[in-house]
Amino acid sequence: MKTISIAILGATGYAGSELIRLIEAHPHLSIAHLAAHSQAGKILSDVLPGVGGSTAGMTLATADAPLPDDVELVFTALPHGAAAHSVKAMLGVGKKAVDLSADFRHADAVTYQSAYGLKHPYPELLDEAVFGLTEFNRDAIANTRLVANPGCYPTSALLPLVPLLKAGVLNVDRIIVDSKSGASGAGRSAKTDLLYCELNEGVRAYGLPRHRHAWEMEEWAECFSGQVVCVQFVPHILPMTRGMLTTLHLCGQQPDTWHGILEQTFKDEPFVRVLPGEMLPSTKSVAGSNRCAIGMVVTGSDTAVVVSCLDNLIKGAAGQAVQNANLMLGLEESAGLPVSALWP
Amino acid sequence: MKTISIAILGATGYAGSELIRLIEAHPHLSIAHLAAHSQAGKILSDVLPGVGGSTAGMTLATADAPLPDDVELVFTALPHGAAAHSVKAMLGVGKKAVDLSADFRHADAVTYQSAYGLKHPYPELLDEAVFGLTEFNRDAIANTRLVANPGCYPTSALLPLVPLLKAGVLNVDRIIVDSKSGASGAGRSAKTDLLYCELNEGVRAYGLPRHRHAWEMEEWAECFSGQVVCVQFVPHILPMTRGMLTTLHLCGQQPDTWHGILEQTFKDEPFVRVLPGEMLPSTKSVAGSNRCAIGMVVTGSDTAVVVSCLDNLIKGAAGQAVQNANLMLGLEESAGLPVSALWP
Amino acid sequence: MKTISIAILGATGYAGSELIRLIEAHPHLSIAHLAAHSQAGKILSDVLPGVGGSTAGMTLATADAPLPDDVELVFTALPHGAAAHSVKAMLGVGKKAVDLSADFRHADAVTYQSAYGLKHPYPELLDEAVFGLTEFNRDAIANTRLVANPGCYPTSALLPLVPLLKAGVLNVDRIIVDSKSGASGAGRSAKTDLLYCELNEGVRAYGLPRHRHAWEMEEWAECFSGQVVCVQFVPHILPMTRGMLTTLHLCGQQPDTWHGILEQTFKDEPFVRVLPGEMLPSTKSVAGSNRCAIGMVVTGSDTAVVVSCLDNLIKGAAGQAVQNANLMLGLEESAGLPVSALWP
Amino acid sequence: MKTISIAILGATGYAGSELIRLIEAHPHLSIAHLAAHSQAGKILSDVLPGVGGSTAGMTLATADAPLPDDVELVFTALPHGAAAHSVKAMLGVGKKAVDLSADFRHADAVTYQSAYGLKHPYPELLDEAVFGLTEFNRDAIANTRLVANPGCYPTSALLPLVPLLKAGVLNVDRIIVDSKSGASGAGRSAKTDLLYCELNEGVRAYGLPRHRHAWEMEEWAECFSGQVVCVQFVPHILPMTRGMLTTLHLCGQQPDTWHGILEQTFKDEPFVRVLPGEMLPSTKSVAGSNRCAIGMVVTGSDTAVVVSCLDNLIKGAAGQAVQNANLMLGLEESAGLPVSALWP
Repeated sequence: MKTISIAILGATGYAGSELIRLIEAHPHLSIAHLAAHSQAGKILSDVLPGVGGSTAGMTLATADAPLPDDVELVFTALPHGAAAHSVKAMLGVGKKAVDLSADFRHADAVTYQSAYGLKHPYPELLDEAVFGLTEFNRDAIANTRLVANPGCYPTSALLPLVPLLKAGVLNVDRIIVDSKSGASGAGRSAKTDLLYCELNEGVRAYGLPRHRHAWEMEEWAECFSGQVVCVQFVPHILPMTRGMLTTLHLCGQQPDTWHGILEQTFKDEPFVRVLPGEMLPSTKSVAGSNRCAIGMVVTGSDTAVVVSCLDNLIKGAAGQAVQNANLMLGLEESAGLPVSALWP
Repeated sequence: MKTISIAILGATGYAGSELIRLIEAHPHLSIAHLAAHSQAGKILSDVLPGVGGSTAGMTLATADAPLPDDVELVFTALPHGAAAHSVKAMLGVGKKAVDLSADFRHADAVTYQSAYGLKHPYPELLDEAVFGLTEFNRDAIANTRLVANPGCYPTSALLPLVPLLKAGVLNVDRIIVDSKSGASGAGRSAKTDLLYCELNEGVRAYGLPRHRHAWEMEEWAECFSGQVVCVQFVPHILPMTRGMLTTLHLCGQQPDTWHGILEQTFKDEPFVRVLPGEMLPSTKSVAGSNRCAIGMVVTGSDTAVVVSCLDNLIKGAAGQAVQNANLMLGLEESAGLPVSALWP
Repeated sequence: MKTISIAILGATGYAGSELIRLIEAHPHLSIAHLAAHSQAGKILSDVLPGVGGSTAGMTLATADAPLPDDVELVFTALPHGAAAHSVKAMLGVGKKAVDLSADFRHADAVTYQSAYGLKHPYPELLDEAVFGLTEFNRDAIANTRLVANPGCYPTSALLPLVPLLKAGVLNVDRIIVDSKSGASGAGRSAKTDLLYCELNEGVRAYGLPRHRHAWEMEEWAECFSGQVVCVQFVPHILPMTRGMLTTLHLCGQQPDTWHGILEQTFKDEPFVRVLPGEMLPSTKSVAGSNRCAIGMVVTGSDTAVVVSCLDNLIKGAAGQAVQNANLMLGLEESAGLPVSALWP
Repeated sequence: MKTISIAILGATGYAGSELIRLIEAHPHLSIAHLAAHSQAGKILSDVLPGVGGSTAGMTLATADAPLPDDVELVFTALPHGAAAHSVKAMLGVGKKAVDLSADFRHADAVTYQSAYGLKHPYPELLDEAVFGLTEFNRDAIANTRLVANPGCYPTSALLPLVPLLKAGVLNVDRIIVDSKSGASGAGRSAKTDLLYCELNEGVRAYGLPRHRHAWEMEEWAECFSGQVVCVQFVPHILPMTRGMLTTLHLCGQQPDTWHGILEQTFKDEPFVRVLPGEMLPSTKSVAGSNRCAIGMVVTGSDTAVVVSCLDNLIKGAAGQAVQNANLMLGLEESAGLPVSALWP
């Protein structure tokens, strides 16, 4: 039953370990190779004691160790900059790749350099890479060998924005995106400002004047809707591990029609739920699942507040990566992906 | 594939909602009926927005609504006292039952009354009920129509204690059980002392001089090991939602042999992991899974500290209930149960 | 030294207990009377075990018990609606009052009714009441017998907004206020949605389409600056006990001059700190103190993000109330008020 | 009024910053010098934005910078090993010292080496150093130039243990100390296992088979009571910032008399509260204060559970250090120390 072999590079970070958990429970995918450079040589369960099942006993490989031949697809959960080289190598030996870094998220190397301050080593691959916002890009994803998995913030913002932009109802010159993220989004580096005692019982904004994900939001909002937009994005880090809530302060025409636009867009989507009436989502209703929940309230004759929630490590990272891999491998898109939250 | 129908009574409490999540992802069980008296008539996803999939649209029934004929097994996640009546009724119409309350956990009505202050309404069912500590009672569970699902604290204490008691290596006159539980163990009642601001950033002991679960620990320790033991049990409530850690302060003979006894006992168990060497578990390594993790350190020539961790809502409640139901229904014991933790 | 007697009505809620703590440590104020209707007759330390010192042994009075003659000022920390009657009674027996409810925060009864849905019982007192945003209203506060203590959200928004409005640099037709509050702002009622397990590890928006504090922000922004403004306010509740962060998404002229305006306004204020450069505050840097910290970053030629932080129970409630009482009683404004945060 | 100058070495760790906060609010002590080697040259408020008042503008000195002449007493909040050298130097230039490290907590260099694995550089100072468990050692503290401030765990265990040991009512051969600590006790080092996401929503035991503080507990239990005791100590780290709860599982004679012994011992103590009846403390009732709260319940004819709570950074560190400094400087012992908790 588990007939397709995959590999994960960067297996012991937060996104990598979430990939392990999801694929371990996946009906068709099997983990054939795990790499984690700084932990190479160790048994997985000694590094990640939460992993159970047969995967627990696997030995971690170095980042450049050769992959088993039967591996069809590789998930790269590596820092930007480093990921590009691994992806290049994987494609070179005939593997498909879902890259969770930012290295292939931009259509051209100039924007990439503006956002990340790096010269892109393989600009030719940028043309080939497909942006993996699954709900809006299924066909391209199914037919590529390289998916750039979207950032968590852009996923939370674009899912509600794109349908409204396509409908032409938004004022596009000042779209305000105020996001709140759990701390796991900041990764697993040993930094003082990520210590428990520094984050617990506190909230702060960061990443101003322009967070890297603002470029990603603007580029793909335009690509999917045809409208040039100006995004003002302010991210905040919250005292919780998982979860992301994005509050969109929007202006436009006939906001009382927007709920219908969102409902119509997502009515058949297994992983996007538009809440009824003026109900607003909590991140608790999606944490542990691959779902995005969207709610909205009209606040004036030309204004509304739209709120979207997702689990930054699942729909915002590892879950959407598996969703994309399913498409790339010809599997059912929802295979192996949790639809219910771990609640409370 | 989903061929067996089940029902859940008390579906909107914390254990009930966890049952929904697990069964929704179960390969063979299907939810045919959900009851929640105080929420009867509502759509499930309006009460529990975290539930996705097809279950989300189900309507909640009253506690005494008739069950569909094809339901084979009922999970009762009701308060003690109330549960007994529902179980009696379910058995009367030919259903099997896994009761998550304390109503059938004691072998005789006198102990039940000592622990819970209630006269048992159906003492004859106490003889029939099987204590569902799966790892030590499989045959009886597979052959009964009524399982009393163990309490979370007893599960965490008995899993490591029983093998050591059976081996005859413990001093049984003063077994100290110091447990730390996440707040979800206290249930979903609207009480001031369970408010966020009253529990957050604090820890306290409670339930003294003798918590109800002390009777359960002593009764089943004796039943499974043949040794009469005296348990001194102190539970604490912690500022976290899920997870339970039990620290056993033990005296006895040749504590350097105990690790081997535990390893030998659980080496083939899918849901119990004995950590190597002096490694000690965190509740994070089991939260979200049906696993119990056990670690120990010898601290003197006749003393050791044994620590066990589990997710109080899964291996301590809904997960073990599904594990037992699997056995009662002739399914593979581990079907539908997560082995890896949701981490971080 | 402790020569002025005060009373607190509503002593066992979160704001009331914080008043006790502050006044106990105050060099000139002495607690002569504590009332808490639902707990009347009990010893304070049995209800609030965190209170130490001599206050701990005081007996709680009923809400309508007569006050000692020597009480000069009463703090009312009661629900809106109820507070008005207590304040009326206190003024009637010659006491000064600082009311922490919303009952006297609006200049006219019509706005009060729009925001709170209640007909005001004593509209004549609305003329007399002084809005206690200390930094902008000192003279009036020093000369009144009734201060309406501002709401926590309006305090956090108005402190940075008023100077910018007075300078005439803001576009006033759409001022976006996105606030994040700790759970203590929701009070101490035993409600399911305030339980630990419902709030922990989650964030959600609430209070839409128009939270009551939006009226308060607009009314006093206009009063202090002379400019009519339109506020779009979205509050969120966070998994932390104390702390409030307000993100202002602003448009206007020459945003590179705004930091200077804020610095100039607050340079001599003991309880407002404007952070240097592009430094942004965390709520951790003010929790436990009576300070508001303000930071800002210019994000475009006509846009900036301004962030303010305070402790919702201190500068947002009890601390500002003491600050106002100090003025009303002829004491040094900063007497007894903590300037440093409890960190970490 | 602020007539005595002090210095703090190691000012930017958690204990150091808490010293700053307490001394800033102290009526008689003034901060004349702050050193923090890794941050030397920076303005304090840029490193610790939570500090307000005039201290905020001070510049941090290097660890070996000369002290102002008028400094009478130095607090050393440095790692063990490093602290000894600073203390030696401070005494050499005529200063008094309160050392918050472990370097002078043991009476002889052999025990120190057993516990910390280091050869003591100045064993002659061990004779002179006074153990600063204030409630049991006032006279010696008032007459020394060097106080070794106790560890947080030993403070929480010894306060209730010493009176019971002196009364001769405890079985001393197996005193079980099960402690639960907030994460700030682990300090401010940038380590992966102290990251927010690694500690949040989890609990684990650590420090086995024998934590360093076990030696400290045994040594001073014997010194203050005359009884040789065997302590079995298991510490746990909890998902909260501040607070420590120690559960003592005790055997002995006539446990129904123990509550009276504790009450009698502490009845006049400003910073120790014995709770009435079977009331048990939460760490929330002491966090932010210099108090220790003690509760107990008799659980059998020869057993009882005693629970003590304190704020690990105040009564467990900086607060007790100030309490000791007050005695050494001839001030009122309670000067500048908070008696009420910051609650909720």
